[in-house]
Amino acid sequence: MLRVEKEKMESFLKDLFIHMGLEEKHSKTSAQVIIQADMTGVPTHGIAKVPYYAMRYKNEAVNKKPDIRQLNEGLNQILLDGDNGSGLVVGPRALELCINLAKDNGMASVAVKNSSHYGCGNYYGWKLAEAGLIGIVFTNTAPLMAPFGGKERSLGTNPITIAVPSKERFPIVLDMATSMAAYGKIQIAAAADETIPKDWANDSEGVPTNDPQMALDGTLQAFGGHKGYGLAVIVEAFTALLTGSPFGGRITTMEELAGKKEEAISHFFMAIDPKGFSSGFDFYSYVDSYIDYIKNTEKAKGVEEIYLPGELEFRRFEEATAKGVSIRDEQLDRLLVLAKELNLCPDSTVSIIDFINSKY
Amino acid sequence: MLRVEKEKMESFLKDLFIHMGLEEKHSKTSAQVIIQADMTGVPTHGIAKVPYYAMRYKNEAVNKKPDIRQLNEGLNQILLDGDNGSGLVVGPRALELCINLAKDNGMASVAVKNSSHYGCGNYYGWKLAEAGLIGIVFTNTAPLMAPFGGKERSLGTNPITIAVPSKERFPIVLDMATSMAAYGKIQIAAAADETIPKDWANDSEGVPTNDPQMALDGTLQAFGGHKGYGLAVIVEAFTALLTGSPFGGRITTMEELAGKKEEAISHFFMAIDPKGFSSGFDFYSYVDSYIDYIKNTEKAKGVEEIYLPGELEFRRFEEATAKGVSIRDEQLDRLLVLAKELNLCPDSTVSIIDFINSKY
Repeated sequence: MLRVEKEKMESFLKDLFIHMGLEEKHSKTSAQVIIQADMTGVPTHGIAKVPYYAMRYKNEAVNKKPDIRQLNEGLNQILLDGDNGSGLVVGPRALELCINLAKDNGMASVAVKNSSHYGCGNYYGWKLAEAGLIGIVFTNTAPLMAPFGGKERSLGTNPITIAVPSKERFPIVLDMATSMAAYGKIQIAAAADETIPKDWANDSEGVPTNDPQMALDGTLQAFGGHKGYGLAVIVEAFTALLTGSPFGGRITTMEELAGKKEEAISHFFMAIDPKGFSSGFDFYSYVDSYIDYIKNTEKAKGVEEIYLPGELEFRRFEEATAKGVSIRDEQLDRLLVLAKELNLCPDSTVSIIDFINSKY
Repeated sequence: MLRVEKEKMESFLKDLFIHMGLEEKHSKTSAQVIIQADMTGVPTHGIAKVPYYAMRYKNEAVNKKPDIRQLNEGLNQILLDGDNGSGLVVGPRALELCINLAKDNGMASVAVKNSSHYGCGNYYGWKLAEAGLIGIVFTNTAPLMAPFGGKERSLGTNPITIAVPSKERFPIVLDMATSMAAYGKIQIAAAADETIPKDWANDSEGVPTNDPQMALDGTLQAFGGHKGYGLAVIVEAFTALLTGSPFGGRITTMEELAGKKEEAISHFFMAIDPKGFSSGFDFYSYVDSYIDYIKNTEKAKGVEEIYLPGELEFRRFEEATAKGVSIRDEQLDRLLVLAKELNLCPDSTVSIIDFINSKY
C-alpha cells in the first residue's frame, strides 16, 4: 500500500484518459470522479476500474467524443441523450445541468439515456451538497438481482444516492446499492473458499445459499427482502422507464461488457433548493444541529460511535487529502501496464510511483 | 369478520368525523383516507384507528378547523403550515396542491409542518398515480427506532411512499416503513407470548432480542441494517429539517399522544409529470410492459407468483370494491361505542351493521 498526493494522481489519471482519446475537459472530469471513489473508501469504483474503462474505449464500445444533447423541451425537466458516452463524462454533465436548473427554478430533474457506468455515487451527492442543494440520484446497472420470489437476473443492483447539505459539518450522503452485498465481495469469498451470509445471494434456483460459487451462478439478494426489491424497481422506473431505455435483463450484462456492446444505462438526477421552502430559518444550520443530535444518541452496548450516512466517507476524504490517496501495489502494477499501452509512460524499469512523482 | 359496502362505510365514517366537529369537506377526506387503508389491506391505519382520531379531537389535541396556509413564496415549492390539523385533512390538502402545481410546472414539491399522522401512505401514492404523476411522499413519525449503533428512541419509523403510474395495469406503489417490522406486530407477539425474529427489534441496551417484551421496552430495528437507518435519516431531512420542525425524539411520543400535546409531524410531497421528459414515447404503456416483464421472470423454487410493489394492495382493493370492506367484529363493537358517544347512533340494541345498512 502506497500513498500518492491527490493532485498528482488526478493529473496522471487525466493524462491516461487523454491518451485513451478523450478531450481534455472530459478527461479531467473522468479523473475527478475516479479519484473521489478512492478518497472516500469506495476503491471498487476508483483507480481499480480505470483499466476497465480503457478496455471499453479500446473496444470502441463507448463513444470517445459523445454529443450529449437535450431531447425534449422541458421547463425544469431535461431528457438527456448521453450518445453512448462514458458515464464518467455523461453523469457529471447531467449533474451540472441539474444543479444550474435547480438554482434558477428551485427544483429540477435530468433523466439520462444512452449512458454507462458513472462511477461512485457519492461524487454526485457531494457536488449537489456543495451547491447547497438536496439531491436524489438514481442509476440502473447491469442485471444481477432477481425480483423478490424470482430466480432470473432481471434487475440491476440499482443504487441510490441522496444528499443533504449541512452548514459547517459534513454533507449527509446516503449512497448504497439496493443489493445486500456487492458481487465483488462474493467473488472474493469464492476465491478465498469462504462461506457467505445467507442473506447475500440466492443460487440459480432462487434459494438462499452460503456457497459463494453457487451465488455467483445465481442472483444477489436485495437488502431487507421485498423492501429493497421495491426500491430497485423504483430506481428502474426513474431511469429506464422514464427515458424509454432498456431495463433489467435487457441491459448489457457484465459478461457482454467485455465485448463491443453498448452499455445502455440510464440515470436520473434531481435537485431541490431548500431555500425555496424558506420562511426565514437557516436550514443548513438546522442540519448541523441534527447531525449533533444523532451523534449524541446513547450508544448500544459495545458501540464506540454513531455515524450519519456519508460521515465515514467524509472522514476518509479528509485523511486522503492530508496524507495522499492510498493505492495497493497490484493496482499500481496494472496502472503501469496501462500507461505503457497508452504510450504515456516510457517502457522502462521506472516504477509508476516514481513516474507520477517526477512528472506531475 | 363482516363485509360492508364501501360507499356505506365511507358515508358512515364521514358522519363520525362530522360528529367529532369537523367540516363536511374535511370529514369526507378523512373518511376516504381511512377506508383506503382497509380496502388495500393496511387495517392498522384504517377503521381500527378511528377511535384514536376521535380521542385526539376530544382531548382538543388536534385542531378541528385548521387554517392550512402557505408560508413561503415558492415557484414550484410550497411550505405549508398544517395548523395542527389532523394529518387526514392536512395530508390530502398538501397532496392536492402538489398535484395541481406539478401539472402546471412539470415538477412540484410541498413540505408540510405542524401536521399529524396522515393515515395510509398508499392513499397518497394512488392519487398521484391517478393524476398520471410519479410521486415521492415522506412523513416522519413518533420516535421508535434508534440510529444504527444507538439504543435511544431518537428516530421515527419514517415511512416512504413512491408511486409510478401505468396505463392499463395497476399503479406501482412502494409504501413501506423504514423499520423492519411494525411496533403493533411486536405487541401482538407479546400478548400471545411468542418470540419474534432477531432482526425486528433491540432491547433497551441496543442488543437484538427475540423477546417481544424486551423489544417493547427497546427500539425497532431499521430494515436492512444501516441502509434502512440511512433512509430513515433522509426522510427526517426531507420532513422535519426542511420545514424547521421537531425531529426524532423531540416529536411527540406514542405515550404522550394520549394527552393534549400537539403531534408535530412533518410531511414532504413531490410530484413529477413524466410527460415533461417526453420525446414522443408513451411512458405509461412502457410501465405496463415492465410490469409484465417482472411478473414473467422465472420463479424461485416454491414461489407461485412474483408481485410488483403495490400489486397486492391493488388486488385487495378490487376485491373490497366487489365484495365490500371487511371489518372484524371487535372493530364493529368499538365503532358502535364511538357512534353512541358521538350521538350518531341511537343508544339501543341495534347492531352497528344494521345501523349502517339502514341509514346509509
